[in-house]
Amino acid sequence: MYKATITITLRTSILDVQGKAVEHGIHTLGMTNVGNVRIGKFVQLDIDAADDAEASRIADETCRKILANQVMEDYSFTVAKA
Amino acid sequence: MYKATITITLRTSILDVQGKAVEHGIHTLGMTNVGNVRIGKFVQLDIDAADDAEASRIADETCRKILANQVMEDYSFTVAKA
Repeated sequence: MYKATITITLRTSILDVQGKAVEHGIHTLGMTNVGNVRIGKFVQLDIDAADDAEASRIADETCRKILANQVMEDYSFTVAKA
Repeated sequence: MYKATITITLRTSILDVQGKAVEHGIHTLGMTNVGNVRIGKFVQLDIDAADDAEASRIADETCRKILANQVMEDYSFTVAKA
């Protein structure tokens, strides 16, 4: 059994509307030294695989097929034996 | 200038409905060796601080005050000089 940790972030060229809203909220609270807020997704999942290579292949397939929208998002992941 | 990388995850005792839906989608695509999907948030932000300690304090304050719902969520962060 492997545990995959995946982060999915909006490409830097894409305006992060959610991030801008949160940044505005942070500034409203008086923390004006915080900026450039970007919000992405963080996914953890278990993979039943024989070895590291198979676990990585399955994690990559999951990202490509369902988790990330590759037109707008980048993804990265790590897999570790659990 | 510091860059903070924050992950916010639903506490393990809380049912992750979004994760369950995504897991169902993954299984529908035929990847039945993937399970226990949990979805959280991944936040990146810039902090204008004098040193590591101040940057960490501001990142923690941001998590506590606006990013994380501490009743249901756990957060962790790292700060690095940019």
